[in-house]
Amino acid sequence: MRDQYYEQLDAIVDDLVSLTGSVRKAVAESTRALLEADGNVAEAVIAGDKDIDEATEMIEERALLLLATQQPVATDLRQLVATLRMLTDLQRMGDLSVHVAKVARRRMPDSAVPVKLHPTIAAMASVADSMIDSASRIVANRDVKAAAELEAEDDEMDKLRRELLRSVLNVEWQHGVEPAIDLALLGRYYERIGDHAVSMARRVVYLVTGQGQLT
Amino acid sequence: MRDQYYEQLDAIVDDLVSLTGSVRKAVAESTRALLEADGNVAEAVIAGDKDIDEATEMIEERALLLLATQQPVATDLRQLVATLRMLTDLQRMGDLSVHVAKVARRRMPDSAVPVKLHPTIAAMASVADSMIDSASRIVANRDVKAAAELEAEDDEMDKLRRELLRSVLNVEWQHGVEPAIDLALLGRYYERIGDHAVSMARRVVYLVTGQGQLT
Repeated sequence: MRDQYYEQLDAIVDDLVSLTGSVRKAVAESTRALLEADGNVAEAVIAGDKDIDEATEMIEERALLLLATQQPVATDLRQLVATLRMLTDLQRMGDLSVHVAKVARRRMPDSAVPVKLHPTIAAMASVADSMIDSASRIVANRDVKAAAELEAEDDEMDKLRRELLRSVLNVEWQHGVEPAIDLALLGRYYERIGDHAVSMARRVVYLVTGQGQLT
Repeated sequence: MRDQYYEQLDAIVDDLVSLTGSVRKAVAESTRALLEADGNVAEAVIAGDKDIDEATEMIEERALLLLATQQPVATDLRQLVATLRMLTDLQRMGDLSVHVAKVARRRMPDSAVPVKLHPTIAAMASVADSMIDSASRIVANRDVKAAAELEAEDDEMDKLRRELLRSVLNVEWQHGVEPAIDLALLGRYYERIGDHAVSMARRVVYLVTGQGQLT
């Protein structure tokens, strides 16, 4: 009975890690749509979000079923509750990559990002990618030490967002108000993607050490 | 035993409704800080967020304790899981009101909102206020019909946000890029506050009718 329980719990963690991979791909593809002004890629990210939503709901249903049938207590209970929370994080990260793809689509056939700022956006996307990868490994291996690195990456993300805003607010900015707003919102979307990765990691740290915040 | 369980569950719902009141106040106060350029009010919202976080964690701990000790199944289990999710919504709404207060603080002694756009921001805040109030009543009374009204208010919020963006992108806009970005972000913050109210309502609808999405 208990063995079967742990098998099911492990299967849920595996699926959570696999879903994290899908979300990571959505973020990378939405960035590609943005920087290469590729409408097909943007549409694929937008259409693909329903797969992420469906996967989320399927894992969620199984976690709830396990809660109801096995009635775990203590750490096992907390792990399932943490899983439910991480699913919410992943679903939001998927939504945020849809927002990025929609900004890309709105400005077709141009890129929403002036060429000079491509490196900054590419750097934010790369930090986000690395943060999602770290979160995934932390979930898979309960690697609490990696969580500290993730916080450092989050600082890097904040730095990049400030850099982006400085460029947009510079007196030499010549692209007008609309691209400035797009970039401010894009900066916010990538920052939030990073925040959700940090939040996933913190949930694992809390599970393993009992330290830190639950939410 | 079961009676005591329902008493505890009711107490948790009462506390959730009371927390919703605190969040509603934070949103209203952050808007006041913004429109009246009142630094003291902005600081109070920012400092007060830790009370919202603490209340969230306290209710969460009690919900987890009830899960662990009473091991509810079926609807009772789903209600506790929905409660945990609604707590995440409320905490995020508190964070978003802090974001609004920080925009207000950054532009002191001026208002971050040009006088001409005060009515639009006031209208967004008023719709947000009404949406949080609806969500609170839906949670308290399981009033599924009110959830439909909430969706209509969400449409109104979207309309106001588009109106705000149109003003900022109008050729007659004379306030420069920085206030434009502030307003685009403020629009996003109020929209997200509304989204979280909708998400709370949907969770109650799902609980009562079994229809709709869990997340």
